Amino acid sequence: MTVTAFLTTLAAILVAAKLFGELAERIGQPAVLGELVGGVIVGGSVLGLVDPHVESVHLLAEIGVIILLFEIGLETDLMKLFAVGPAAAMVALVGVALPFAAGYWVALAFGLGTLPAIVAGAALTATSVGITARVLSDLGRLGDPEGQIVLGAAVIDDVLGLIILAVVADLTQGEFGGLSAIVRTTVVAFGFLAGALLLGQLVVPRLFRLISRHGKEPTVAAMGLVFAFIMAILADLVGSASIIGAFAAGLVLASTEQAPAIEKGVLGLGHFFVPIFFVAVGAAVDLQVFGSRDVLLFGGALTLVAVLGKVAAGYAPFWFTGRKLVIGVGMVPRGEVGLIFAQTGLTAGVLDAGRFGALMLMVIVTTFVAPPTLKALLKPAAGAEAEESAVADLTTEI
Amino acid sequence: MTVTAFLTTLAAILVAAKLFGELAERIGQPAVLGELVGGVIVGGSVLGLVDPHVESVHLLAEIGVIILLFEIGLETDLMKLFAVGPAAAMVALVGVALPFAAGYWVALAFGLGTLPAIVAGAALTATSVGITARVLSDLGRLGDPEGQIVLGAAVIDDVLGLIILAVVADLTQGEFGGLSAIVRTTVVAFGFLAGALLLGQLVVPRLFRLISRHGKEPTVAAMGLVFAFIMAILADLVGSASIIGAFAAGLVLASTEQAPAIEKGVLGLGHFFVPIFFVAVGAAVDLQVFGSRDVLLFGGALTLVAVLGKVAAGYAPFWFTGRKLVIGVGMVPRGEVGLIFAQTGLTAGVLDAGRFGALMLMVIVTTFVAPPTLKALLKPAAGAEAEESAVADLTTEI
Repeated sequence: MTVTAFLTTLAAILVAAKLFGELAERIGQPAVLGELVGGVIVGGSVLGLVDPHVESVHLLAEIGVIILLFEIGLETDLMKLFAVGPAAAMVALVGVALPFAAGYWVALAFGLGTLPAIVAGAALTATSVGITARVLSDLGRLGDPEGQIVLGAAVIDDVLGLIILAVVADLTQGEFGGLSAIVRTTVVAFGFLAGALLLGQLVVPRLFRLISRHGKEPTVAAMGLVFAFIMAILADLVGSASIIGAFAAGLVLASTEQAPAIEKGVLGLGHFFVPIFFVAVGAAVDLQVFGSRDVLLFGGALTLVAVLGKVAAGYAPFWFTGRKLVIGVGMVPRGEVGLIFAQTGLTAGVLDAGRFGALMLMVIVTTFVAPPTLKALLKPAAGAEAEESAVADLTTEI
Repeated sequence: MTVTAFLTTLAAILVAAKLFGELAERIGQPAVLGELVGGVIVGGSVLGLVDPHVESVHLLAEIGVIILLFEIGLETDLMKLFAVGPAAAMVALVGVALPFAAGYWVALAFGLGTLPAIVAGAALTATSVGITARVLSDLGRLGDPEGQIVLGAAVIDDVLGLIILAVVADLTQGEFGGLSAIVRTTVVAFGFLAGALLLGQLVVPRLFRLISRHGKEPTVAAMGLVFAFIMAILADLVGSASIIGAFAAGLVLASTEQAPAIEKGVLGLGHFFVPIFFVAVGAAVDLQVFGSRDVLLFGGALTLVAVLGKVAAGYAPFWFTGRKLVIGVGMVPRGEVGLIFAQTGLTAGVLDAGRFGALMLMVIVTTFVAPPTLKALLKPAAGAEAEESAVADLTTEI
């Protein structure tokens, strides 16, 4: 890729993200919805200006979602997150079990074999923590109890999703390692998160006090970013997701004295990199799936159970007295995680193009339907109009 | 390249840049010198952590130098630059003619044929506008008359360098288009700059007033960056350099009401991207050139005339009453532009490895010797110690 081609792609991404992001907010929607729509328009389905599979674009998009989760971690109060831990775990577990069972059943009913049906069910378990967190952040609702439960559940779900993906990938290659392999992966993934938080709390505050004593503010911010990158690398190495590592890095740094300087430094980078991620997700959408009757039928059925399964999961923590519907809807968007599942099935030859298209349809609808629904649900709670717009102003800085 | 490998590279680049940048300032040197040294250390010659020729690293480095020149343009007063125009043009022309003639003569004396001697002479004409501008910016001297002349001359030199490079590339392939081709390239390159500035002054302020009326501050900043990217693309298309386009974009935007918002938004990106460029330049250095006696002799002779030629050019505008030595030294660093010349000769088979190494040596020495020399020359002029450190604090924000 030449420098000129790269600049053209970046310019198209930024214009699409900002133009449609502003338009979305103008009609009362979260900016992220506009960025996704902008992505569809500059992507292969319409203008063909942005190919999200080109290496450099893909890498920048990954940096974008890593910075997003790092920012979200920096703004998250670990104690508040721990407080909703049981509720979040319940939402995550039911939100995996129900959609998997329902998706598997729907797939069998549409004549798929056992293995393709497992892949379809697995794709329904995903939650895109990036999209969920960004929507809540756009709406200024990340700190609400409902927001914290959704964030916690989405993080747990992302770890569970990776385990399921590993199992599915093994199954599609006929190499299933048995229950012990699943248990091992699970322990490692959650153990990493716990270990990182524990060790981080002991070492990181001292390290960053040292850095801020000897370095200028931009240096402190850069080292915060380096810490997020290192945690993302480590998370990937132990079989967890890089974005979980970045989120953990943010959580650990959130309580340090250097957090404001780091947040300030990362903010400008976020404005540039984060939209690249969402435009890339939008650009990966293939609008052709809306053209086939069979795909629409099977995809529609999958979408229905995908939405109902996650909404039901929102009601799983029966002891929680807040707005359970908000939690359920917050878990609906499958985003890029759902796409990865479908892609795995397609590449392994377990899914044909039509069935892949049906899963794509499910991913598109769940991803695009959640932001406006959440916005509609959360609007009345914001109180006075003036207060709401102050919150919106604040959160557009994220 | 996997995401993990990319993150590892970025982390190594940022740590090297910030660690050595801070160390350089601690011993009274411009941060950019530390970033170049840090690049050598993480590059192939020492640790082998960063390969500047990997596509994604190369593209990010290019974004870095584009953002740097955009920032420099945003801070430049066009009227001040025009006022020193004749002096800058004189410095640029003499700074191309003298080093070319001297380099050609030295190369012939060392037994090279006509064509290799032309390539060697051409490599000596380059000035790295990125390194020159960054050093002056680190020292807070970009606004001085000397700084403005160096900046103007470096920009003109960069355009001249491209023309020479095009001629050299034609010559090495035996396709020299004659004087008319040179004239055409020259007119197009300078015509682009003049046209962009003229048209920009007419259209751009209105456009950005419109954007700022309907968009939020991050959107305005993003559109400023998009404008820089588009100008870089256009400059490249008409045969000028992308960084000249980015500089012109900054010049045009500098006088708009939105300039502060754009500068603020681009600042955070600069902290991340600009060091990538300088670390990449450092990482491209091959320390082996210091191991051969022949290379040291030929390279040493080239370095000598390379330094003397540019220093003499600083004295060319005889009517200028300021510190001419500062101007000459400011023009010395060949940086990445010199490397590109040497690379062209090597790839075309006109230079063998030893002669390429001698040019590499000249590039390394001129690039690394200029920042500390400028710092030493400019130190006394800074006045009180307190005032100087305030300037230094301010400029490290760039």
